[in-house]
Amino acid sequence: MEVTKGKYAADLSSIREAQARINSFIHKTPVMTSESLDAISGRRLFFKCECFQKGGAFKFRGACNAVFSLDDHQAAKGVVTHSSGNHAAALALAAKLRGIPAHIVIPKNAPQCKVQNVVRYGGQVIWSEATVPSREKTATKVLQETGAVLIHPYNDGRIISGQGTISLELLEQAPEIDTIIVPISGGGLISGVALAAKSINPALRVLAAEPKGANDAAQSKAVGRIVTLPETNTVADGLRAFLGELTWPIVRDLVDDIITVDDTEIIEAMRLCYEILKVAVEPSGAIGLAAVLSDSFRNNPVRKDCNQIGIILSGGNVDLEVLWRSFRK
Amino acid sequence: MEVTKGKYAADLSSIREAQARINSFIHKTPVMTSESLDAISGRRLFFKCECFQKGGAFKFRGACNAVFSLDDHQAAKGVVTHSSGNHAAALALAAKLRGIPAHIVIPKNAPQCKVQNVVRYGGQVIWSEATVPSREKTATKVLQETGAVLIHPYNDGRIISGQGTISLELLEQAPEIDTIIVPISGGGLISGVALAAKSINPALRVLAAEPKGANDAAQSKAVGRIVTLPETNTVADGLRAFLGELTWPIVRDLVDDIITVDDTEIIEAMRLCYEILKVAVEPSGAIGLAAVLSDSFRNNPVRKDCNQIGIILSGGNVDLEVLWRSFRK
Repeated sequence: MEVTKGKYAADLSSIREAQARINSFIHKTPVMTSESLDAISGRRLFFKCECFQKGGAFKFRGACNAVFSLDDHQAAKGVVTHSSGNHAAALALAAKLRGIPAHIVIPKNAPQCKVQNVVRYGGQVIWSEATVPSREKTATKVLQETGAVLIHPYNDGRIISGQGTISLELLEQAPEIDTIIVPISGGGLISGVALAAKSINPALRVLAAEPKGANDAAQSKAVGRIVTLPETNTVADGLRAFLGELTWPIVRDLVDDIITVDDTEIIEAMRLCYEILKVAVEPSGAIGLAAVLSDSFRNNPVRKDCNQIGIILSGGNVDLEVLWRSFRK
Repeated sequence: MEVTKGKYAADLSSIREAQARINSFIHKTPVMTSESLDAISGRRLFFKCECFQKGGAFKFRGACNAVFSLDDHQAAKGVVTHSSGNHAAALALAAKLRGIPAHIVIPKNAPQCKVQNVVRYGGQVIWSEATVPSREKTATKVLQETGAVLIHPYNDGRIISGQGTISLELLEQAPEIDTIIVPISGGGLISGVALAAKSINPALRVLAAEPKGANDAAQSKAVGRIVTLPETNTVADGLRAFLGELTWPIVRDLVDDIITVDDTEIIEAMRLCYEILKVAVEPSGAIGLAAVLSDSFRNNPVRKDCNQIGIILSGGNVDLEVLWRSFRK
C-alpha cells in the first residue's frame, strides 16, 4: 500500500529529519545473521539488534528525537512520562544528554533492571499503581506541579518518527529483505517502521508480533477500531500497552498482518537468541523470532513468499532472575 | 618490541594470507562500545565480539584457516582434534564447509552446549577422560585408525595465523586503541593477536587475562620457561590448557603482561556483559573485562596510559544452567 503524505502523525520526511537529529547520539545497531537460525526457520533472517541501542532498547531513538525537538524554553522545565521501563530509561538518558530534568512515573510492577536504568541515567522516579489510568493520573499531577513537557511512550509523532529511523538503517544494511517483523504494543515502533519501510518500498511486508495474552492490536485489526483489554497476561512486560489514536490508523492501514504467539513460544525464542545468536534479549525483544517460528506463520500459505525477513530484536533489559524462572518452567 | 619476521610459527604475512583464505566463511564481528562500562572502568573500551563468530567463538578463524590450508589429498581423510569445546565445534564446522570428516575427541567434563555444537555441525564425537594426556592418547589412536590430519587447538601455525585475523579487523574498526586485552589458555589466540598487532604497531600493548586457578602462563612468564600445573580450578572452562612450544616464544616475547583474576571477578564481568552490553558471553569470554576492572590493573601505575582498550570477548557458548548457578553463588 502506498503511504499518503501528511495522513499520519509522521512520514518519511519527519523520519529522515529525526535521523539527522539523533544520529550523533544513537548507536547504529548491527544486523546479525545465523545460518543455524535460518535452518531452523526455513527463511533467511536478519536480526536488527536494538537491544544494543543505548539504554538497551529502541526506545532511545524516539525519546532522543522528542527531547531534541523541544525548543530551549520548552526544554528548560524538563520532561515527564509514564512507562513500564524502556521508554522511561530512554527518556531519562536523552534528558541527561540535553541537560534537563526527567520526571518518570513508573508502575510498581516494572522490572527491577528497567527501574535501575532510569536511576542510572539520572531520572526522577515517581511511583504509580500498575494500571494505565493510575499511571496517567500520576503523570498529569507531575505535569501540573513541574510545568514539564509530557513525552508519551508511543502516541506522539516525534516518538514515531524516531523509531522509524530503524527502517532507514535496516534497509541500508540488508536491502534484500522483503518482510519486517516488529513487536507491537502501543504501536509506536511498528508505526515508525511501517511508515518508513512502505514509503521507501510499498511492496515490503510489515508484520506485527503480539503476545496472545495482550492481543489488543490483533483484536483491533479484526474489528476495525481500537480495542482495549480489561487485563493483560504475558511474560513480555514491554508489550502490555494498547494502541493510541495516532498509532492505530497507521497499524490499521500499513500493517499487513498480526501474528500472535503464546508465552512458551516467546521464551523458546529468547532461549535461541541466547544460545545461538549470543544476544541477551528480553521477552518482548524475542517475540519477532517467536512469530517466525510459530505454526501459524509457517503454515500460512500467504507467507510462503516471505523469504528474507528482518526481525527487530527490540530490547534486552531483563532481570536475570526472571529470565531464569522463565527458562525453568 | 619489533616483531622479527620468520622467528615464530606465524607472522603478519601468514595472518594476511589467512584473512584472504577465510574471509568469505567467517563473520566480521562487530566492535561494541558502552558509555556505562567506560564509566565503570575509567577507560574507553572497545569490545570485539567474537562470541558472535560462527560456532560462537573466535576458534572458527583458526580452524577454518587450517582446514582450507590442506591440499585435496590431505583433506580427503578428514581432520582430528581434541578440545574441551569451542575448537571442536569450530573444526567440525570448517570440515563440514569443506565437505570432509571431522573426528573430535572430547573430554567427559566438556560443557554440554559445546558438545551439542560439535554434533550440530556434523562432527564425529569420540569421548576421552578429562586429562590432557588422555585426550592426546585418544586423539593419537583416532589418527592411526583414520589417517586424518591432526589440527591441534592452538599449537599450530595455521591456527595462530587464523586467530591473528582478529587484530587486522580490530585495528581497522577501532584504530585509536592503544592496548588489547586477550584471554590466555594454550596461547593460540593471543599469539596471533600479538603477532599481527605488534607487527602493525609495535607501540601497541598486548596484555593477557588469565584465571588465578589456571595461571600457568603467568608462572611461565615469571620463570622464563613453560610451566604446567598438576590441576586447574576455574569456572572459565575454555582457559584450562597450557602453553605449547609454538605459542610460548610468542607469549614470552610479545605479551607485555599477564593479569590474573579470580572466578568471582570473571562472573561479575560476565554479568556486566549480559546486563549492560546485552551480549551472552561465556566465563572465558568475559575475562578481559574482568582484568580491566581488577584492582591489580586499576592500581598499576604502568597501566595509567592504557586508555583506549580493545577487549576480545572470545566466546559465548555457555550452558544456561551453569551460568545461573554461577550468578547465584
